[in-house]
Amino acid sequence: MNSENIFQSIPDNIDKEIFETLAQSNNVKIERIISKGHQSPESGWYDETRNEWVIVLKGEAIIEYESGEQAKLVEGSFINIPAHTKHRVSWTKPDTETVWLAVHYSSAPGQ
Amino acid sequence: MNSENIFQSIPDNIDKEIFETLAQSNNVKIERIISKGHQSPESGWYDETRNEWVIVLKGEAIIEYESGEQAKLVEGSFINIPAHTKHRVSWTKPDTETVWLAVHYSSAPGQ
Repeated sequence: MNSENIFQSIPDNIDKEIFETLAQSNNVKIERIISKGHQSPESGWYDETRNEWVIVLKGEAIIEYESGEQAKLVEGSFINIPAHTKHRVSWTKPDTETVWLAVHYSSAPGQ
Repeated sequence: MNSENIFQSIPDNIDKEIFETLAQSNNVKIERIISKGHQSPESGWYDETRNEWVIVLKGEAIIEYESGEQAKLVEGSFINIPAHTKHRVSWTKPDTETVWLAVHYSSAPGQ
């Protein structure tokens, strides 16, 4: 039962955002995301079938909703994004890694 | 869609460990736990029906398994504890809060 550390094993090359699954079952996926100045493509809204609970553990980010509403996230900020709530990452801090922990979870069994 | 911060709203009085649900569905519970020198009772093993993925976000802790094996957790350390793996918290840092994020999740639908 060894522990790992979410701030370790961060690759040097973060040209693309890095998504890694830390644990999962059929109902949940726990994921580490590393961004560095990345943002979602202009045209690209995330429209997910599962709810997403997300926390920023290092760095800073802005999440934007289709309504135009924005949420600025700093270290420790968390937000719950219900399924099918269109959102995008409009900004992440350019000069350092932003480390996210995301928990994707379904509302009903087996979804 | 306001964000909250996991390091804020920490009560002054932490005589007992504090457990707060941050988000949940029928398959998952996301919980903040705040300890300050607390440990599980000597006789008390956690024996949970769900898997538990847990990360220490502030402070330090030691988790002990029934086998005697121990895991020292520092900031950023995470560990996955399968359902029915008996474990206890044998130590948390006495002079400052230890902030945990725990994700309890079932393996099969609806459990």
